[in-house]
Amino acid sequence: MMTDNLAVLTLQCPDQPGIVASVANLIADVGGNIANADQHTDRDSAVFLQRIEIDGPVDWEAFEQGLRQLIDRFSMQSALHRPGTRDRVVLACSSELYCAADLLTRVSLGELDVDVVAIVSDKPAAGQLAAQHGVPFRLVDGGLTGDARAKQEAAFAAALEELSPDLVVLARYMRILPEEITKRWNGRMINIHHSFLPAFAGAKPYHRAHQRGVKLIGATAHYVTAELDAGPIIAQGITPVSHRDEVEDLVRKGRDVERSTLANAVRLHLEHRVLVWDNRTCVFA
Amino acid sequence: MMTDNLAVLTLQCPDQPGIVASVANLIADVGGNIANADQHTDRDSAVFLQRIEIDGPVDWEAFEQGLRQLIDRFSMQSALHRPGTRDRVVLACSSELYCAADLLTRVSLGELDVDVVAIVSDKPAAGQLAAQHGVPFRLVDGGLTGDARAKQEAAFAAALEELSPDLVVLARYMRILPEEITKRWNGRMINIHHSFLPAFAGAKPYHRAHQRGVKLIGATAHYVTAELDAGPIIAQGITPVSHRDEVEDLVRKGRDVERSTLANAVRLHLEHRVLVWDNRTCVFA
Amino acid sequence: MMTDNLAVLTLQCPDQPGIVASVANLIADVGGNIANADQHTDRDSAVFLQRIEIDGPVDWEAFEQGLRQLIDRFSMQSALHRPGTRDRVVLACSSELYCAADLLTRVSLGELDVDVVAIVSDKPAAGQLAAQHGVPFRLVDGGLTGDARAKQEAAFAAALEELSPDLVVLARYMRILPEEITKRWNGRMINIHHSFLPAFAGAKPYHRAHQRGVKLIGATAHYVTAELDAGPIIAQGITPVSHRDEVEDLVRKGRDVERSTLANAVRLHLEHRVLVWDNRTCVFA
Amino acid sequence: MMTDNLAVLTLQCPDQPGIVASVANLIADVGGNIANADQHTDRDSAVFLQRIEIDGPVDWEAFEQGLRQLIDRFSMQSALHRPGTRDRVVLACSSELYCAADLLTRVSLGELDVDVVAIVSDKPAAGQLAAQHGVPFRLVDGGLTGDARAKQEAAFAAALEELSPDLVVLARYMRILPEEITKRWNGRMINIHHSFLPAFAGAKPYHRAHQRGVKLIGATAHYVTAELDAGPIIAQGITPVSHRDEVEDLVRKGRDVERSTLANAVRLHLEHRVLVWDNRTCVFA
Repeated sequence: MMTDNLAVLTLQCPDQPGIVASVANLIADVGGNIANADQHTDRDSAVFLQRIEIDGPVDWEAFEQGLRQLIDRFSMQSALHRPGTRDRVVLACSSELYCAADLLTRVSLGELDVDVVAIVSDKPAAGQLAAQHGVPFRLVDGGLTGDARAKQEAAFAAALEELSPDLVVLARYMRILPEEITKRWNGRMINIHHSFLPAFAGAKPYHRAHQRGVKLIGATAHYVTAELDAGPIIAQGITPVSHRDEVEDLVRKGRDVERSTLANAVRLHLEHRVLVWDNRTCVFA
Repeated sequence: MMTDNLAVLTLQCPDQPGIVASVANLIADVGGNIANADQHTDRDSAVFLQRIEIDGPVDWEAFEQGLRQLIDRFSMQSALHRPGTRDRVVLACSSELYCAADLLTRVSLGELDVDVVAIVSDKPAAGQLAAQHGVPFRLVDGGLTGDARAKQEAAFAAALEELSPDLVVLARYMRILPEEITKRWNGRMINIHHSFLPAFAGAKPYHRAHQRGVKLIGATAHYVTAELDAGPIIAQGITPVSHRDEVEDLVRKGRDVERSTLANAVRLHLEHRVLVWDNRTCVFA
Repeated sequence: MMTDNLAVLTLQCPDQPGIVASVANLIADVGGNIANADQHTDRDSAVFLQRIEIDGPVDWEAFEQGLRQLIDRFSMQSALHRPGTRDRVVLACSSELYCAADLLTRVSLGELDVDVVAIVSDKPAAGQLAAQHGVPFRLVDGGLTGDARAKQEAAFAAALEELSPDLVVLARYMRILPEEITKRWNGRMINIHHSFLPAFAGAKPYHRAHQRGVKLIGATAHYVTAELDAGPIIAQGITPVSHRDEVEDLVRKGRDVERSTLANAVRLHLEHRVLVWDNRTCVFA
Repeated sequence: MMTDNLAVLTLQCPDQPGIVASVANLIADVGGNIANADQHTDRDSAVFLQRIEIDGPVDWEAFEQGLRQLIDRFSMQSALHRPGTRDRVVLACSSELYCAADLLTRVSLGELDVDVVAIVSDKPAAGQLAAQHGVPFRLVDGGLTGDARAKQEAAFAAALEELSPDLVVLARYMRILPEEITKRWNGRMINIHHSFLPAFAGAKPYHRAHQRGVKLIGATAHYVTAELDAGPIIAQGITPVSHRDEVEDLVRKGRDVERSTLANAVRLHLEHRVLVWDNRTCVFA
C-alpha cells in the first residue's frame, strides 16, 4: 500500500469496453509497471473510475502524449501525480483545537508527509499551537452577521488565495462558508463534521444526539460543497455511547472519532485515493 | 450476568438522598441478597433509575409490603420480576422474513427463553416459516389506504388483544401503526428500523444511504411510539460499506446488522435491562 | 458488487510487467468487458494476484485458448468460474447447531445461493435441524481415541468422498481432522474457530478468554490445514465484553460473531473472492 | 459520568449479604448522597467490588471513622479519593513518540487533568517533545545486557523513586522491566502493548500479525506485572486490516489504536474506574 516512489494515475469516464486494456497497454509501452490498480464501475451512472500506481523507468513524455489520446477517445477526466512533491496544506480552525493539534502532531511525527503552510482561524486560540509547531498563524476574525461577516469571509478567502495550498482542512472551523469559497476550493477542501451524517447535520450535533438517546455517535469527513454538511463523504467513524454519557462525555468520546476520521480522510486524499462523482466518493483504500 | 434464578427489581423516581440505602435495607431485611445492581441518575431531569438482581430466601410478601412504602415515599415507578415465568411473544412481519427467522432460530436453540405464541403478518409469506417452527400463523392482510387500511389495522389490533403477549416484536412489519396501537403496546412493542436513526427515518433507507454515499450503514431497535421511527432507542448496530456496494449489497449487509441488533434489543428487554424515561432508554447491559 | 450473471476469473503468478495488459487484451479480443477487477501484488513474495468479473458476449472457447497461452507465459495458476452453476456444500457440525442453523436459514432465504447436499455430524443432535430444512443427515459418530477414532475419521472421509461437494463448511465440527482429510480438501474446507486467532487456538477459547480478562472476544473463519487453527484466515470478527460477562455470556455473545463471520467467509469463498498464497489470503471484498 | 466535584470510593471484599446496605447507610448518615454507583460480584471468586461517587456536605471525619468499621467487618480493601487533587504522572518512552505526544496533547487541551512531572526515556529522541510541552526530560540510557542493563534499570528505578508519581505510563517504553520495578509500581504502572493480547505478546507483534495474515490488529493497555504482557487488561482496541496492508501499514493503522486505547486506559485509571482482582480488571466505565 506504500506509494512513496510510485506515480499515481487516477481517471474516470463513461464506461465502455476497452478502457482497462488501453490504459494497461499505454503503461507497458512506455516502460512502466502496474504496481497496484483498483477500479470501479458504478452501475447506475455507468461511470468507470480507476486508480493505478506505476513504477519502473517510465518515459513520462511519451506517457502523457499517449494519455492525451486516451482522454480524447474515452472522454476521460484524469490526473497524474508523480512522486517527489509534498502537498501544501492550510489548516483552518476556531476555538476547538484538538483536530488541528492532532494533524500537526502527525506531521511532526512524519505520519502525514505535507507542509502545513499556515493555520488560519477566526479566533486567536490557535496562535499558541501554531507557535509551538513553528507554523505561521493567520487570524481572520470578524462578526457572524451582515457586513462584519462579509468582511471576515473576504479575509478568509483572501488568505487562502494568497497561501494557495493544495488542500484546505477545516479542522473544526465553525463558520458556514459562502458559495464562492466552496466552489473555489471544490474537491480540495475537507471538513470534519461531528456527527454521523446525514444524522445531525448543522449545529450542536452532540446535544441533539444526547437528546435523541442514540447508542452510537460518529464523525464524518467530507469534501465541502455549497450545501452545508452535504458534500461527498470520504470517511466516517463511530463509537458506542450509553445513558451514562452526558453531553460533555459525548463531546469527549467524539473527539477521538473526529480526530482519527479526519486524519484518515486527509491521508486518503493526499494519496490520491478519493475520486468523486455524482456527489459520492470512490475510496480506493 | 446470568439472571436465571434471580428476581429483578427495576425502579425509577425523582432523585433524592436515601433511595439506595432504603432499597438495600429493605432487601436485607427480608432475607435477600443483592447479586447485582446498576443505577443511574440523569443529571438533566434529576431522575434516579435502578435495576437490582436479588437472590436468597426472600420473604416476598414482606418485600412487596415494604416496597409499597418506598413507592409512596419516593414517588417510585417500580416493577418486580420473579423468576420462573416465560414471556409470551408475538412476532409481526411482512414479506421479509430474515428477522423473524433469526428470532425463531434463537428460540429453537434456547438462546431466547420465550414462548412465541404467534406470527402475525399482513402477507402470506411467513406461513411456511411459522409451520417449520410449529408456531401459529395469523394473516391480517388488507389494503394500505382508506377503509381497507382501517380494517387491516383493526384486525391487527384485535389479533394482538386476543393473543395478549408480554411483548410484540415488529420484525420487519412494514406498516405504519395507528396511535391506538402504539399507545396500547407502549413499552411492550419493539421495532427494528433498517437505518442508523435518526438518519434515514421512514421508507427506503438503504436506497437513500446509497444515494448519499455513506461509509457506514446501521440498524436501530426501538420501542414503538406514535411518531414514526422516533421512539426510545434500545440498541444500534453498524457495518462499514464502500463505493463497491450497490443498494442490494447494502440490503444484504444490513440484514446481519438488523438481525443481531433486534435480537440484542429483545434480549435486553426480556431481562428487564431497559428502563425508559423522557423518550430515552437506560440500558443496564 | 453483484456477480450473478458474470464470469469470474482468478489468477496468481510471479509478478512481472505486462500481466494486466495481456489479460485485459485477451478479454477485449474475445468480446468481453471487464465489469470489475481487483488486483494485488505482494511485495515480499513478489506474487501477483487478480480477480476479474467479465460480462459481454464472450467467445469462451477462444478465451480459454488464449488463457492457456498466458498461463504458460506467466506461470499462472488460474480458475474460471462461468455463471449458472450452484455450488454443492456439505455442512459438518457436532452438538452446537447455531452455525449450521444460521447457514441453513440463509440458504432458505436465498442469501446464500448453494445446494446444501448434506449435514454430516459426529453427534445425533443435528438430525432434527436437517429434517426441518429438508436436508439429508449423515451421522458419522465414534470414539475420540484409538481405533474408534480412526474408524470415525474414515467414515467422515468416506462421506465427504461420496457427497463430493464443492465446499465443506465445518460449522462447529468439534474434531481434530487427520492430515489426509485436510490435504484432500485443501482450499475447499472452511472452519470457524471461536476465538480471535492466533489468540486462544485449540480447546475452550471462551474459558481462557474469561480467565485472561480480555475486553474483546472474536471469531476466525479460515481454510483448514494440517496444523490446528493455523490455516489461512478468511475473515475475523470481534465483539466487546466486560467484567460482567461470565463464560456463558462470552459463549452467547461469541455465537453472533461466529455466525456472521462464518457466513461472511462462506460467501466470500463462493463468490471466488479469496485467493490463497503463502498461508495468507487475499480477499477481494 | 463527570466526576469533577465528587469523591470516589472504591472497595472490594469477599461477597456476603449486607455490604451495599451498610455502605449506603454510612454515606447517608454522614450527609452524603450517592451520585452514581456501580458494583459487580464475581461469581467464581465470590468477590464483591464497588465504585461509588459521593456528593453533598459530607462529614468526612465521621465517614472515615465509619468506613474503618466496615473495613474490619467485611475484610474490605478500600480507597477514598476526594476531589481537588491532580494526579502526578510520569511518561516513559523510547524512540517512538506518538503515544507520549498524544498524551501530552491531551493534557495541553485539558482532556486529561494531570500534571506530567517528567518524561523519562532510554533514548534522547523525546527531549524535543518534552521541551515543546515544557515538561522536564530525564534520559536514563544504557545497554540492553549485563551490567549496562542493570545500571540502566537502576537509573530508571531511581528516577521514578525521586519523581514519586501517582501513575507511570509506559508510552512505548521498549524495555523489559525487572521484577523490583513491576512490584514497586504494582497497580500504578500502565503499559500499551501493540497487539491484541494474548495474541502476539513480546517483540515485533505487527510483523507477526502480517505474517499470520490476520484481518484485524489491536492494542492492549494493561497494568504491568512481573510476567511480560500478562498483567490485568484495562482496555483493548482493534482496527481492520487487509492483504493490501504491508507491515508499515499495520504500524501506521496500529498507532491510532494504540493512542486511543492507552489514553482511554489512563483516563479510566485516573477516574478510579479500574479495580483489580485475580489478575483481571473490573472497569466501571
